Amino acid sequence: MNNPYPSTLLENAVNEFAKLPGIGRKSALRLVLHLLRQDEKNVNHFTETLLKLKKEVNYCTCCHNISDTEICAICADKSRDPSVICVVENVKEVMAIERTVQFGGLYHVLGGIISPIDGIGPSDLEIASLEERVKAGDIKEVILALSATMEGDTTNFYIYRKLTPYQVKVSIIARGVSIGDEIEYADEVTLGRSIQNRTPFNESYKLVTK
Amino acid sequence: MNNPYPSTLLENAVNEFAKLPGIGRKSALRLVLHLLRQDEKNVNHFTETLLKLKKEVNYCTCCHNISDTEICAICADKSRDPSVICVVENVKEVMAIERTVQFGGLYHVLGGIISPIDGIGPSDLEIASLEERVKAGDIKEVILALSATMEGDTTNFYIYRKLTPYQVKVSIIARGVSIGDEIEYADEVTLGRSIQNRTPFNESYKLVTK
Repeated sequence: MNNPYPSTLLENAVNEFAKLPGIGRKSALRLVLHLLRQDEKNVNHFTETLLKLKKEVNYCTCCHNISDTEICAICADKSRDPSVICVVENVKEVMAIERTVQFGGLYHVLGGIISPIDGIGPSDLEIASLEERVKAGDIKEVILALSATMEGDTTNFYIYRKLTPYQVKVSIIARGVSIGDEIEYADEVTLGRSIQNRTPFNESYKLVTK
Repeated sequence: MNNPYPSTLLENAVNEFAKLPGIGRKSALRLVLHLLRQDEKNVNHFTETLLKLKKEVNYCTCCHNISDTEICAICADKSRDPSVICVVENVKEVMAIERTVQFGGLYHVLGGIISPIDGIGPSDLEIASLEERVKAGDIKEVILALSATMEGDTTNFYIYRKLTPYQVKVSIIARGVSIGDEIEYADEVTLGRSIQNRTPFNESYKLVTK
């Protein structure tokens, strides 16, 4: 079959967009044609914003989350409890947990999880700096909030062992049936875990279902 | 609610990606974080490829499709029939029709369809240049291959009226039940149209269903 693209310039741009996660060649073409219809000013603004982020991005020296300042707004917030640290994979998880408005401590952003297949080992992640924070003292609890996957569990165990020498409580976020899920359709591992980790039910239990 | 983004640089980049069609804020964040994990070299290449396309893009002077050369490969192909012109909205439709390997004529790319809501009138499209091509003679048939929507039909009628003064056959691609569709689930308009426009059935009819 012939090359379906009428222009190499177009094909190159489509190839670049198709490298992005979840963007197939059809979507990539749609996005490129959309940008091609925009004013040159807008396209320049698009690329400049991206390059500016890449060049000037800064990470909080305390929790390693993306931040415009040396210490991020969360770490600098005096109303938060600095003795509880929630360990997350990335900025996306910080944003997701912040949206719940259920956590008042600080974070530690690993920048990924241990994944031998992708060549990511403990030294590629902010695990040593987490140990340093705990070693420095005044930390009462470390909450592990990584994905409920094999890689997440590997990372959980690795961090747990690293922190064992210190007087710190290590906990993990609850795994169980999601709110709104029907028991019938829950997978066996999740359902089994939710029975093992059942919590007391009484009058003060908050009903969150619709 | 507080601004969920820990960095303005990050937020700006997410805003730019979220302007693209079909990209929500969650996907935009995922794409931006993916690019942030890449080498600066790769990010530069991404933006340069896009800017190069925007700056150097060229349209075929004959059919107005995107092309690296003054006359595109299709218009320049001597084995194709220059007396049949297929009118399409955009480069995507040229690529889709070329993939069918069922059309051996040339194209005319309008660059959109008439859409008063989006402020797109006939003068924003390559309709005058289509009329010029037909006026110049040697065109036997113009095939309308626009979307089967209100805007597509409006554009079809407009072009049809513009071409009426010339000795040219104007046809429209068949509308009917799609291959693989069950009659039961076909919409009424499509089914009605497919009955009106029924074609003779005989031994040479190609069965294309599985």
